Amino acid sequence: MKSFSDRLADAVRRNASPVVVGLDPRADRLPPPLACDAAADVCRLAEAYELFCREIIDVVANSVAAVKPQSAFFEQLGPPGLAALHAVIEYARAKNVLVILDAKRGDIGSTAEAYAAAYLGQSSAWKADSLTVNPYLGGDSLAPFVAAAHQQQAGLFVLVKTSNPGSADFQDLQCEGRPLYRHVAARVEALAAEQLGECGYGSIGAVVGATHPEQLAELREAMPHAWLLIPGYGAQGGGAQDVASGFDAQGLGAVVNSSRAIIFAHQRPEYARFAPSDWQRAVEEATLAMRDELTANN
Amino acid sequence: MKSFSDRLADAVRRNASPVVVGLDPRADRLPPPLACDAAADVCRLAEAYELFCREIIDVVANSVAAVKPQSAFFEQLGPPGLAALHAVIEYARAKNVLVILDAKRGDIGSTAEAYAAAYLGQSSAWKADSLTVNPYLGGDSLAPFVAAAHQQQAGLFVLVKTSNPGSADFQDLQCEGRPLYRHVAARVEALAAEQLGECGYGSIGAVVGATHPEQLAELREAMPHAWLLIPGYGAQGGGAQDVASGFDAQGLGAVVNSSRAIIFAHQRPEYARFAPSDWQRAVEEATLAMRDELTANN
Repeated sequence: MKSFSDRLADAVRRNASPVVVGLDPRADRLPPPLACDAAADVCRLAEAYELFCREIIDVVANSVAAVKPQSAFFEQLGPPGLAALHAVIEYARAKNVLVILDAKRGDIGSTAEAYAAAYLGQSSAWKADSLTVNPYLGGDSLAPFVAAAHQQQAGLFVLVKTSNPGSADFQDLQCEGRPLYRHVAARVEALAAEQLGECGYGSIGAVVGATHPEQLAELREAMPHAWLLIPGYGAQGGGAQDVASGFDAQGLGAVVNSSRAIIFAHQRPEYARFAPSDWQRAVEEATLAMRDELTANN
Repeated sequence: MKSFSDRLADAVRRNASPVVVGLDPRADRLPPPLACDAAADVCRLAEAYELFCREIIDVVANSVAAVKPQSAFFEQLGPPGLAALHAVIEYARAKNVLVILDAKRGDIGSTAEAYAAAYLGQSSAWKADSLTVNPYLGGDSLAPFVAAAHQQQAGLFVLVKTSNPGSADFQDLQCEGRPLYRHVAARVEALAAEQLGECGYGSIGAVVGATHPEQLAELREAMPHAWLLIPGYGAQGGGAQDVASGFDAQGLGAVVNSSRAIIFAHQRPEYARFAPSDWQRAVEEATLAMRDELTANN
């Protein structure tokens, strides 16, 4: 199997799309055909989440670089939610859609090894193609994830500069001459450069929010070999111009996530023309519109 | 219900013990009566994990402040592992043993809300008494966890200074006049002081490793209202003297975790006198020995 980095590049090229659709199901925003009483029956709700995500995967399979299930919303339902997450990942893989599992894990030693063995690659329990991880615990906490990623042809996205306003609290602190996020970025770049794919990028990438365009440009330069996963597009306020500096001349090097604006597109005024039973068409149109916005200047 | 802070103080006093036993089951270290082939049947292994943890809870219920299931080892088994984790937490609560779920979650906005709703308190899916969280994403990423903790009479332990050598990489960086971990500690202290229990501590605590005795003393002083959860005792090298500065004059203010040295005590030479079928007695003796070490100077 190719490296995660090259599989991601292939998906971007094949679908002419750097779009990542975030799978963040929520009981109170499901399309009417899938609505169910969250309080009454958590197992039915978990089934609704699974069906919702499967339908989205069907619709976006040929217009996205990857899907990004957000583990939190599945964990919120307890064990039935996690069975649904497992089924969603399996479904995406069967449809040849790359999965970036957004779980922001991080721990040390054998615990980090357990997380890596849990999530990364075909031989893991969850079989994700890649995983988001949190760097706060330091380089030796990332090492087991990196080792597993390389061994399993899987990928990582390390949090570097997140899209929320509070990311400034610690990530922007000036530490020994540069912001903390630059220290983390230097570590990510070194890890990315260890094993480069044919596309020129490694399988160890970085999360950099769309809401900080100047820092995105700075971090693109600081991590020339790292894929950037850019959240914060759409609902959080980032636009196409804000993320433009993430891409190289071939349109590679970055993928851009949108969750709510796509998966709940049926609730957006511009897609009110679709009947509730046609919510998938709203998802489809919102995905294609985002792809067009992002690739208009290519 | 009392606040998490006061329930923790009650447990420390009732059992005269600041010991937290980490529930980190591993297939290759289960006691012989519970051994099963990990590769052959993950469901049987998950059942073995559950039984192993339940037996440990039975043995330590009256000699610990809390138990700390490590989510990673359950996640490693996929959905059956998480069903086991759910059952273990339920069992501990039924036995009136406090649960600190070690999952090191962290995210922003509605995702952080989902994690908090997943884990914290009796009305959540997982019903943990408290949760470890990662501060890298900033103050607004902690806020939903804090709000839920206060509402659910639950607790948090925010990673401040972890026990691994690599914790120096980012946590020790000098940022605007002091190490990063002190910036995080200042935030934790402010959150802890917002709602104090009768015991004098808040329900928002901090993780500070036993492997850094000087920083532990410094951080005890910097966070006078925060419970400290101290990992790194035993297998990672910290001893009773290393953690002594964590406690106040009443023996409160800190709890000390040991995982492997207790739950796999049947493999330690000093407990070789117990038959394999008596592995629970090795756990019991190791727990009592740790309690005695920690309270010898009180």
